[in-house]
Amino acid sequence: MDMLKETLQKITVLDEEAMRAARARQDRLTKPRGALGVLEDISVRVAGITGNSLPRPGRKSVIVMAADHGVVAEGVSLYPPEVTAQMVLNFLGGGAAINVLSRHVGAEVRVVDVGVATPLQDPGLISRKVRPGTANMAAGPAMSRGEAVAALEAGIEVAGEEISRGADFLATGDMGIGNTTAASAITACVTGLDPCEVTGRGTGIDDQGLERKVETIRKALEVNRPDPADPLDVLSKVGGLEIGGIAGVMLAAAAARRPVVIDGFISAAGALIAAGLHPRAVDFMIASHLSVERGHAAILERMGLHPIIHANMRLGEGTGAVLAFFLVDAALRIISEMATFEEAGVSGPEEEG
Amino acid sequence: MDMLKETLQKITVLDEEAMRAARARQDRLTKPRGALGVLEDISVRVAGITGNSLPRPGRKSVIVMAADHGVVAEGVSLYPPEVTAQMVLNFLGGGAAINVLSRHVGAEVRVVDVGVATPLQDPGLISRKVRPGTANMAAGPAMSRGEAVAALEAGIEVAGEEISRGADFLATGDMGIGNTTAASAITACVTGLDPCEVTGRGTGIDDQGLERKVETIRKALEVNRPDPADPLDVLSKVGGLEIGGIAGVMLAAAAARRPVVIDGFISAAGALIAAGLHPRAVDFMIASHLSVERGHAAILERMGLHPIIHANMRLGEGTGAVLAFFLVDAALRIISEMATFEEAGVSGPEEEG
Repeated sequence: MDMLKETLQKITVLDEEAMRAARARQDRLTKPRGALGVLEDISVRVAGITGNSLPRPGRKSVIVMAADHGVVAEGVSLYPPEVTAQMVLNFLGGGAAINVLSRHVGAEVRVVDVGVATPLQDPGLISRKVRPGTANMAAGPAMSRGEAVAALEAGIEVAGEEISRGADFLATGDMGIGNTTAASAITACVTGLDPCEVTGRGTGIDDQGLERKVETIRKALEVNRPDPADPLDVLSKVGGLEIGGIAGVMLAAAAARRPVVIDGFISAAGALIAAGLHPRAVDFMIASHLSVERGHAAILERMGLHPIIHANMRLGEGTGAVLAFFLVDAALRIISEMATFEEAGVSGPEEEG
Repeated sequence: MDMLKETLQKITVLDEEAMRAARARQDRLTKPRGALGVLEDISVRVAGITGNSLPRPGRKSVIVMAADHGVVAEGVSLYPPEVTAQMVLNFLGGGAAINVLSRHVGAEVRVVDVGVATPLQDPGLISRKVRPGTANMAAGPAMSRGEAVAALEAGIEVAGEEISRGADFLATGDMGIGNTTAASAITACVTGLDPCEVTGRGTGIDDQGLERKVETIRKALEVNRPDPADPLDVLSKVGGLEIGGIAGVMLAAAAARRPVVIDGFISAAGALIAAGLHPRAVDFMIASHLSVERGHAAILERMGLHPIIHANMRLGEGTGAVLAFFLVDAALRIISEMATFEEAGVSGPEEEG
């Protein structure tokens, strides 16, 4: 609990002066003001996060949190639970989508076992197993409050190690069969929306499966009655260990003033928990893509974040986030490398000259 | 005219067999079917375009077409017309947004003068000037039908040269003060939408300027009465030389079976002309981003294309298109490099095994 408290205490405001300087530079570059839209906003945000008005691209790391979910006993997923462990091995072997896309963008992939049910040992795996999967939230709390804190602290610790190793930009990813059920339950609880408004097909269940999933979430919320104002209560009762880990990464990034890119729905659920623990944590987050999962848009809207990539993706793993790393780098190269009106001898708008 | 005819005759259907094989491979990769959304679709489309079921990333080239617009006399733009030539020099000097983003993605920038009003000479510039800017479309046709064909053929020729030099993927970009007025006029004419529904603020005009711009477009359509069913009539009467050049690049790409990425509103207006000249040309186009300019969405919707990047950009130059090059490469690396369920020993969905 001390690690969590200390991390929360370190989170503070963005550097307004660096942001003003970055915006002023954007306005001198050879383009109409604001014409690069979100790319301009990202450069200004990164200036505020890092305190550097001319931030540069840097080392990128995606932290993929893996865990299992007891709620799969309710038949909420199309895939068998052993796929969580199998996919972790696929990540370590370099054959998954997150590996391909991370190579493409030049990001390191770190895979963390926060709660995979199957015992796993591999030199490439970061083992921070809090417990071998959650309990079935439809029958009682997914985990204890202490375990929720341990999951958060696993994320804080791993993110801290990545930052010590030189990571300038972090992203989060997830693997966990059943985890869209947990993410939807968290979203329904915190936003107050009905479960059917924030529940999607996950890996691809049919109409009947979707109905069962919504009912399972309703049951979990009724059985556990998580307090929406208490993020640890929500996380422990209807959350997931990887979602806790992701929230921890986000808090650690905010505390260390590193931008952190949110992936899809599961990462957004982690972001929602992090934002509940410290509202300013949101200032350090960058939204990447808009998932097919309905709850994703609900969370981003609530946090005032705008996803850049609209590609009907719904894979998780961090795949949307690492694609957005490329756009963040693009934004930072724009502010550093573009010529100003003066340098290029280009006339400004008519009323100015 | 012969060059245009020959190009149109070469445009044919996508390779259905290559597309089926690509989709079948996507379905064997370690992810739920369809979970990578548009990335999967792009890999299948590129397979159909190239006839290679396992297409790889390749050499990328963005062709930036520059020209001036007589309609600026009506006060439709915030910037003075000499900015077109100044920005061309900025492109050649490497200081513009398109240069920065093309370096970032690894694309070559080719700058073409199809009709800049100012005389320009530079070893880096491709000179294909059809005429020094269009005439004021509010008073009569922007150019003759022969000039419209010449602009198209300039695009065909330059794209052909790029392909001969080894370009596997093309993108289009534009520079031309006043060209959103031409693009809106084309869009209103071809789609039948009211000018006020497809006209935006361009480089940033105010409410009064926007009203003047819409009225100018109305006047141009009334004075010239372009035939929506005759793309050459539309292009010559209310179009632009760079828009013709862009349409030519798209037709040449389709004829040579190279994917071509559409940038923002101006490029989309070119795509609309190309699609009018040959409806199958659309099959070879990939949408990149969704511009702030209202007409952009109208065109993409009409052509059934889905933009991936939603970043409130409105710069043109090809900036959105080259960002999308990265996503196209990502899509192609996914289909080539990801492990299959079999290779990785990962279980499929429950009903299948």
